Amino acid sequence: MKETKETSIDHQLRATWQAVAKMYNEEASKYGSTMATIFLLLTIDKHTGSASTSLGPKMGMEATSLSRLLKSMEEKGLIYREKNPNDGRSVLIKLTDFGKEKRETSKQSVLQFNNTVKQKLSKEEVAVFFKVTATINNLVVNKKIFNNI
Amino acid sequence: MKETKETSIDHQLRATWQAVAKMYNEEASKYGSTMATIFLLLTIDKHTGSASTSLGPKMGMEATSLSRLLKSMEEKGLIYREKNPNDGRSVLIKLTDFGKEKRETSKQSVLQFNNTVKQKLSKEEVAVFFKVTATINNLVVNKKIFNNI
Repeated sequence: MKETKETSIDHQLRATWQAVAKMYNEEASKYGSTMATIFLLLTIDKHTGSASTSLGPKMGMEATSLSRLLKSMEEKGLIYREKNPNDGRSVLIKLTDFGKEKRETSKQSVLQFNNTVKQKLSKEEVAVFFKVTATINNLVVNKKIFNNI
Repeated sequence: MKETKETSIDHQLRATWQAVAKMYNEEASKYGSTMATIFLLLTIDKHTGSASTSLGPKMGMEATSLSRLLKSMEEKGLIYREKNPNDGRSVLIKLTDFGKEKRETSKQSVLQFNNTVKQKLSKEEVAVFFKVTATINNLVVNKKIFNNI
């Protein structure tokens, strides 16, 4: 079969993620926020906070971009920093009450997206989608794509 | 059902795309290239070239990032600019012979990824994956997620 954009898994993955990212950014901008802020609010543990060093990998962000995002969220009063009792060299990022409130709004947006999509699909189709993404992740993490010598 | 990262479509979409992007960037860096370069080489029509104005939307890139990428690819001798005979105000981006050669290498990398993934899945599973991404794209493009009043 000829490989076209329509039958290219990476193309569909990228185009779909870019469309979703654009949509979240547009929605977030209505509240003076950004997609990155929404996801960081949802990534931080709302009860215990999260070690700053754990956030980069979870967000898939470089240290400098993350540090800029944290600074901007601190200035907006969404988060604050606290010494990490378990590790003197790292810092805990915690949600303020305002941050917790915005986390709830962000959660509703994410739920609305997921529910709307799932309503258009059968349970089996959703399950296959998760199987496909898990398959891709496994191949990538285990370096099976370009190191299969 | 409780919504968790594992059952969140947008989370899987984002995490999977980020993993794939990281993999392509690592592979491209072996040849002193980047994922963006790979995709731009594949996006430009190898016979007729492509109008510069058409590349941003196809790549999902902002004008400034695209202009920086085109400049760097021009300096590496991968592309050149030509007056667009159909539109005096826009420019055609064309591949040099070296660019065409690199386009072929890029194509092989993308094919290797797609083939490796497809070998792990049934035809039906791949078809469902495309149905799900098409469903998401349609909902987003038709603004059915956050404007469903």
